Amino acid sequence: MYRVAFYEIFEEEEKHLLKYLPKEYDCFFTKKSIQDTDTGDIPAPVISTRTQSKFPKHWKDKIEAVLTRSTGYDHVTRYFKEINKILPAGHLPKYAARAVAEHTFLLILMLARKLDAQRESMQTFSRDGLTGFELLGKTLTTVGVGNIGSEIVKIGYGLDMKLLGVDIKPREEFAQKHSLDYVSLIDGITQADIIVCALPLTEETDGLLDTARLSSAGNCPILINIARGEITPPQDLIQLLKDEKLSGVGLDVYDEESTLGSYLRGEISKTGIADPAVRESVEATLKLLKHPDVICTPHNAFNTEESTDRKSRQTAENLKHYFDKGDFLTPIPVD
Amino acid sequence: MYRVAFYEIFEEEEKHLLKYLPKEYDCFFTKKSIQDTDTGDIPAPVISTRTQSKFPKHWKDKIEAVLTRSTGYDHVTRYFKEINKILPAGHLPKYAARAVAEHTFLLILMLARKLDAQRESMQTFSRDGLTGFELLGKTLTTVGVGNIGSEIVKIGYGLDMKLLGVDIKPREEFAQKHSLDYVSLIDGITQADIIVCALPLTEETDGLLDTARLSSAGNCPILINIARGEITPPQDLIQLLKDEKLSGVGLDVYDEESTLGSYLRGEISKTGIADPAVRESVEATLKLLKHPDVICTPHNAFNTEESTDRKSRQTAENLKHYFDKGDFLTPIPVD
Repeated sequence: MYRVAFYEIFEEEEKHLLKYLPKEYDCFFTKKSIQDTDTGDIPAPVISTRTQSKFPKHWKDKIEAVLTRSTGYDHVTRYFKEINKILPAGHLPKYAARAVAEHTFLLILMLARKLDAQRESMQTFSRDGLTGFELLGKTLTTVGVGNIGSEIVKIGYGLDMKLLGVDIKPREEFAQKHSLDYVSLIDGITQADIIVCALPLTEETDGLLDTARLSSAGNCPILINIARGEITPPQDLIQLLKDEKLSGVGLDVYDEESTLGSYLRGEISKTGIADPAVRESVEATLKLLKHPDVICTPHNAFNTEESTDRKSRQTAENLKHYFDKGDFLTPIPVD
Repeated sequence: MYRVAFYEIFEEEEKHLLKYLPKEYDCFFTKKSIQDTDTGDIPAPVISTRTQSKFPKHWKDKIEAVLTRSTGYDHVTRYFKEINKILPAGHLPKYAARAVAEHTFLLILMLARKLDAQRESMQTFSRDGLTGFELLGKTLTTVGVGNIGSEIVKIGYGLDMKLLGVDIKPREEFAQKHSLDYVSLIDGITQADIIVCALPLTEETDGLLDTARLSSAGNCPILINIARGEITPPQDLIQLLKDEKLSGVGLDVYDEESTLGSYLRGEISKTGIADPAVRESVEATLKLLKHPDVICTPHNAFNTEESTDRKSRQTAENLKHYFDKGDFLTPIPVD
């Protein structure tokens, strides 16, 4: 029997998945993350999640494989470290790059054009204080020029922006084709009008874009994070906005996101967050949500018809590969 | 004496204008449109407005020249017809094209990515019903490929969209460079995923994008109007959304905009709108403002630091030219 438990499924995704999954699979679907369900017994040997699920330690001997329906996979490698075991594991490295890149420009334009103030002024049809800035000719620093970062660069190129990139693996051909200059992180921050974080979360990138580093920003830039919230600690963002080191922040991802999500859905109270560091982080994010210079979307940058379809097809292909051959088509790289 | 009265000035604009206007000019500045001030006596022989002012008929013999600080000038030519007189008149044909084009893509992305639903879902960190669509590969029909339309095409080209253009004066070289296909209005509407209205308001374009013509839309497209509200009658837009001929509407401009503005600013009541056709139009627009599939900005697409600076410089240059030589650098074309 091919048994798979799918967590963190949303409506449209389930519709697309059912199109691609073979009828003989025995599937369990839930909108919830693992920790929000009864985790007493593992519902199937193959577990598929997005990024907010926490895998229970006591599933250790029953879990056979993991497929995260996301590009990032830090939650999976963290679990493997915790249980000191490496299982067959897959992720979806490319399904959403374009969707995330286009969403990034939505967030950039919203901040550049003072969208919220514009819409508020619609009520009185006035135009004071609504002057924004144009993207043409502005300096866009993409931190992390991987699958998503590359799509961001391509769109920035089409908008005639000045493009800087920060990456440990520069690709000269790509850079030349899109007039991208690779620079150091500090140079990228110093010169930017707009900074986009498109890094994977690793030990090296955790907390990388902090107060100290972003304080070298010279043009009071906008910062967008569509990668992982842990890379831009929320307490630091509040400070940077206060110090006018940043003029605006656009977030699709959040530090301690699964706890934040549970809190926002009313599943836990603030006092129910046992770890004081986690509570502090969630409280800082809640402040950001209300900040006039911050715009937030609910980790939804990936979510288009096109990417949902690509994701569901790639999910089904990965599962078929696993059931046929014991490993995934797009496996999680293991150090 | 060089005397100029500036109406419909907003804060940031005044700041930039003072930088460029010679000190010896005797200037009168007001945020208000002409009809919202005491129009008993003309304050200066040269009158500069934006698009919401209505010129009083009794200024006929005292007004010497008009400079509209806008690309559109239908309000000026209408006045000249009314008073049966043609005065030296200028407009600013190019200052805002880029700003308006970038704003157009903000409106497109907001609708394509269901921005309002996303932000509402932030409160519960849920993702049902938030699946949008990507712009890559979608068909963008630009109706009116003039200064603004050309910038829209350039950005669409950078986003790898399929580009259709509708214009009475096709430019083959521009089209070839940007993979733009000129088509008839009906073909453009039929095939579009996104329709952008970038036409000037003339007798021919007034009411052009009405229920009858837009009903030929085949893909339930998004419609954006950043040109003039009169081209997309609000009653028709309500009907087209109801009939699912359009999936969303983004507006920066409004039919009967000066009356709408006065109403929204609380300067007049609905019953104070004497003309029943105008009242009906304003009421339809008020419905659109509350419609879940409609997003609105307050005729602010032009409003960037860069364009405000260009506008103020071009205003000063035009006035200098008028005072030196009796006509404007960028005159309003007279039929």
